[in-house]
Amino acid sequence: MSKNLTSRESDYSKWYNELVVRADLAENSGVRGCMVIKPYGFAIWEKIQAQLDKMFKETGHENAYFPIFIPKSYLNKEAAHVEGFAKECAVVTHYRLKNAEDGSGLVVDPDAKLEEELIVRPTSETIIWDTFKKWIQSHRDLPLLINQWANVVRWEMRTRLFLRTAEFLWQEGHTAHATEKEAIQEAELILDIYAEFAEKYMAMPVIKGLKTESERFAGAIETYCIEGLMQDGKALQAGTSHFLGQNFAKAFDVKFTSKEGKQEYVWATSWGVSTRLMGALIMTHSDDLGLVLPPNLAPIQVVIVPIYKNDDQLDAISAKVNKIIEALRNKGISVKFDNRTTYKPGWKFAEYELKGVPLRIALGPRDLENGTLEIARRDTLEKQSILQSDVVDFVETTLEKIQKNLFNKALEYREDHIVEVNSFEEFKEVLNTKGGFVSAHWDGTSETEDKIKNLTKATIRCIPLNSKIEEGKCVLTGSKSAQRVLFAKAY
Amino acid sequence: MSKNLTSRESDYSKWYNELVVRADLAENSGVRGCMVIKPYGFAIWEKIQAQLDKMFKETGHENAYFPIFIPKSYLNKEAAHVEGFAKECAVVTHYRLKNAEDGSGLVVDPDAKLEEELIVRPTSETIIWDTFKKWIQSHRDLPLLINQWANVVRWEMRTRLFLRTAEFLWQEGHTAHATEKEAIQEAELILDIYAEFAEKYMAMPVIKGLKTESERFAGAIETYCIEGLMQDGKALQAGTSHFLGQNFAKAFDVKFTSKEGKQEYVWATSWGVSTRLMGALIMTHSDDLGLVLPPNLAPIQVVIVPIYKNDDQLDAISAKVNKIIEALRNKGISVKFDNRTTYKPGWKFAEYELKGVPLRIALGPRDLENGTLEIARRDTLEKQSILQSDVVDFVETTLEKIQKNLFNKALEYREDHIVEVNSFEEFKEVLNTKGGFVSAHWDGTSETEDKIKNLTKATIRCIPLNSKIEEGKCVLTGSKSAQRVLFAKAY
Repeated sequence: MSKNLTSRESDYSKWYNELVVRADLAENSGVRGCMVIKPYGFAIWEKIQAQLDKMFKETGHENAYFPIFIPKSYLNKEAAHVEGFAKECAVVTHYRLKNAEDGSGLVVDPDAKLEEELIVRPTSETIIWDTFKKWIQSHRDLPLLINQWANVVRWEMRTRLFLRTAEFLWQEGHTAHATEKEAIQEAELILDIYAEFAEKYMAMPVIKGLKTESERFAGAIETYCIEGLMQDGKALQAGTSHFLGQNFAKAFDVKFTSKEGKQEYVWATSWGVSTRLMGALIMTHSDDLGLVLPPNLAPIQVVIVPIYKNDDQLDAISAKVNKIIEALRNKGISVKFDNRTTYKPGWKFAEYELKGVPLRIALGPRDLENGTLEIARRDTLEKQSILQSDVVDFVETTLEKIQKNLFNKALEYREDHIVEVNSFEEFKEVLNTKGGFVSAHWDGTSETEDKIKNLTKATIRCIPLNSKIEEGKCVLTGSKSAQRVLFAKAY
Repeated sequence: MSKNLTSRESDYSKWYNELVVRADLAENSGVRGCMVIKPYGFAIWEKIQAQLDKMFKETGHENAYFPIFIPKSYLNKEAAHVEGFAKECAVVTHYRLKNAEDGSGLVVDPDAKLEEELIVRPTSETIIWDTFKKWIQSHRDLPLLINQWANVVRWEMRTRLFLRTAEFLWQEGHTAHATEKEAIQEAELILDIYAEFAEKYMAMPVIKGLKTESERFAGAIETYCIEGLMQDGKALQAGTSHFLGQNFAKAFDVKFTSKEGKQEYVWATSWGVSTRLMGALIMTHSDDLGLVLPPNLAPIQVVIVPIYKNDDQLDAISAKVNKIIEALRNKGISVKFDNRTTYKPGWKFAEYELKGVPLRIALGPRDLENGTLEIARRDTLEKQSILQSDVVDFVETTLEKIQKNLFNKALEYREDHIVEVNSFEEFKEVLNTKGGFVSAHWDGTSETEDKIKNLTKATIRCIPLNSKIEEGKCVLTGSKSAQRVLFAKAY
C-alpha cells in the first residue's frame, strides 16, 4: 500500500483502471487486448461461475464443450450473424511454424496453410447448430438445454480490463425447442435468472428490458437484457438472452419430427454473461479506498489481523483466533488469518480495504484481557468493539446487513438516476449534468435512435419490460410513441 | 440401443471409438481433430475437475487465467521448448474477414494482417513466465503456486476422441520457488496428487516414474509421470509433472531478491492432466456392454427404473421411489429416476449399462407387495433382490465395494502384465504375445532407446521411482545398466 488511489470524482476512468490492477484483480498481458486474470480476481469469478452454474443446472441445463475453432464457411451461413462478427475475429490460417532459411528465427511455414481458414470463436451459435443437427431428430430430443463455459475472442480495437477485452471468459447457453412459445419462455426464464443473480449475489439492481433492433444480437429476433447503472451515471449491459426464432435452424437445416409426424424447424435461444460482470461488480460498489465486495461473492468474507508486540502475544492471540476461525468456518463463513510477520497491522488494514474484504477483525493484547475484539465494516467503515463470545452471531448478521446495504445503496442511486424528460433540451440537460437513465418517448425508428446517438452519445439501453403503457410524442421528432424507453451513455 | 458394440477382443480400437460415441461421451466435430464433449461426458469431466481442483487448493495453489494467444517471439525464447511445439501449432495471422470484391463470399482481409503472428497456446509456460516477471521481485513473493483450467491446441495429425485431439481441455500448474529443492518437492507433491487421484477416484492403478531424456517435456530438466495400463496391454501416460530448473526464469529473466539480498533466478515447475484422462478412465474399466464407471466419478450413481403395466402401478411405484430417492440423496448419493413412458424397461436397462451407471434398481408391482426391489451391479452384472428398508445401507456399501473392486481388478491385470525379461528375444516375445509393461535393463542411451522403439514400437514409459536398484546388462546392447526400466507400446 504505497499511494492512494485516484479518486472517483477526479477521474472515474483512471480510478477504475488503477483499482483493477492494485486490488490484484487483473492486468494487461503482453498480448494486445488480452488480460491476465490474477488469483484474487479469478477467485471472485469462480464464485460467480459456481452460483450461475447451480442456477442453470437447477433449471434443467447441462454443460457441454464445443470446439474453439469455427470454419469460415459456418460463420457465413446466417447472414445477420456473419455481418455482426466478421469484422472483429481472429483468423487461423496456418498450422505450423518453422525456422527461417536465412536463420532470422521462427516464421510461419507457407506449406502449412489451411485449406479453409478457422475463426477463433467470437460466439458459438454456428458450430453448435452444426452439432445440434446431429442431436435432434424427434420431438423426444427436445427441449435441448445446453450451456458452455468458455473463452471467446472478439478483436476489439479499444480495450479495458474486464469491460472490453479481445479475449474474455463467459458462459453461453444454446437451447432448442419444439415451439416458438417455449423458446420465448426459455429466453425469459434466463433473463430472470440473470436478474436474480445480479440483485441477490452482486447486489446490483438491474432493469430488465428488450433491445431495439439496432442493439440486437446479430442473428436474433429479440434480445432481452439486464442493464445496470454505474456510479458515474453510465449504464452497463450485464447480460443478454436472445430469442433466435428459426434463424439458425434454417441456416443449419435442423428439423424435428413433431408428435403429429410433421417435419418442422426447431426454435432457438442463446444467452450469455461474461467476465464483464467483474467490471460491473467493481464499479457498482467500490469507493476511493478500493474495492467493496458483497459478502455473497467475496472470496474472503472476514479477515483477522493480530495486533502484537512480541511472539508471546502473537501466540496467545493465535490460540484465541484459531477458535474463532473454527467457529466461523463451521457456519460456512470464509476467514483468513493474516499472521504474516513481514507486514505491519496498518499496512494490512489498508490492503484489505483495497481488496474489499467485507469484515475485518483486529485482536490485540487488551482484547485478550477483556474478552473483546474490534470489528470493522468495509461498506460503512464503521468500527465496533464486541465480545468474543458474540462474534459468530455478529458476523453472520452483519454479513447479511452488508449484502442488503450494498444493494439498497445502489438501488437508491439508480432510482435517483432515472429521470423522465419530455423535451430534447431537457434530455440533453439531464444527460450532461446528472447522467443516468433518461426515460423518454421515442418514435420507434432506427433513424431517430441514430440521430440521438450522434447528437448526445446516448443509446437506447432498453425498452423496459412491464413498464406502464403511456402514449406520448418522440422527444426528438415529435412523432407518436407508445411507451417511454431508457436512454443512457453506456459502457 | 440398437446394435451391440464391437467386442474388445475382435477390435479394441473400434470398440473404444464406438463406445465413446454411443455412451454419449464425445463425438467428432466439423473441425478437423476437434471434438465435441457431450453433456454426459462433460459431467464426468466436471467431477474430475472438481476433485483435482480441491486437491490443488488444499495444497495452497490458486487459480488464475492467462491469454489464449502467445506472441511468436515468446515461444522462441526457450530453445528446447520452441523445438517441441513449433511444428504443431495453430497460427493466427489476421484479425478480420471481409466480403470478397468478386462477391464470392467471405475472405481474410489482407489489410488486417497482424504485425506479429499469435500462436494459440499449446501450453502456457512462455506467456505465464512473461507475467511472473512482473509478479516476482522478492523472496516474499515465493513460492508462487498457480494453476489454470484451460483449452489448448496442438495440431496433431492423427487424432482420436479424448486420447489425442487438436484441441483439448486441461489444467496446467505453473509454480515458482526460491530453491531447487523446493521446486523438486513441488513436482513430486503434484505427482503424488495425480497418483492419488488416479487410484482413489478413477480406480486406475498407476506407476510413478521419471521420463527418459527423449520423452521429457520440451524445456524440462526432469519429467515425472504416472503411467496406467489399458486392457489391450498398451500403456497410457495419464499425467506429467515437470521440474523446469531455471530454464524459463533465464529465458524470461525472472529474478528475486533472496533473504540475503542477492539477485537469483527463480526455480520452476509445471504440471498437467487433460481430457485424456477420460480416455484412460474408459479403457481401464469398460466392457463389451459399454462403459463401466467408478462410483466416485459417476454423474449418476444409481438409476431407478419402474416396471409397470398401467398408470396406477406407475403412480404407486413413484410414490415409493420418491422416498427412496430422498433417503439416498440425503446421503449424498446421486440418483436418477427414469420414469419416461416413451421407452421400455429393457431398453432402459441396456442404455444404463452402456452408460456405465454403477447401480440399477428396478421396482415392479410384486416388489411393492413384498417390500422388495431388485438391484444390479454394473461391474459384476450381479442382480439381487433386497428389502426396500435396507436400500440406503446396501447402496452405500455396494458403491464402496464397486469402487474397490474396479481398482483391484485393474491392479491385478496390471500386476499380471509387468514381466521381467533378460534377453531381447524374450522382450519381443512378451511384448507381442502378452503386451503390458516389459521390465528390462537398458544402457541409459537415447540411441538404444531409439533402436528398440524402431524394432518393437515399444518406448520407455518410465524409470520407476522407488524401484529396487539391481545391476544388469542392457537387453539390446549388453552394456551395463543400473536399474530396470519399463517398456511398453503406448497411447
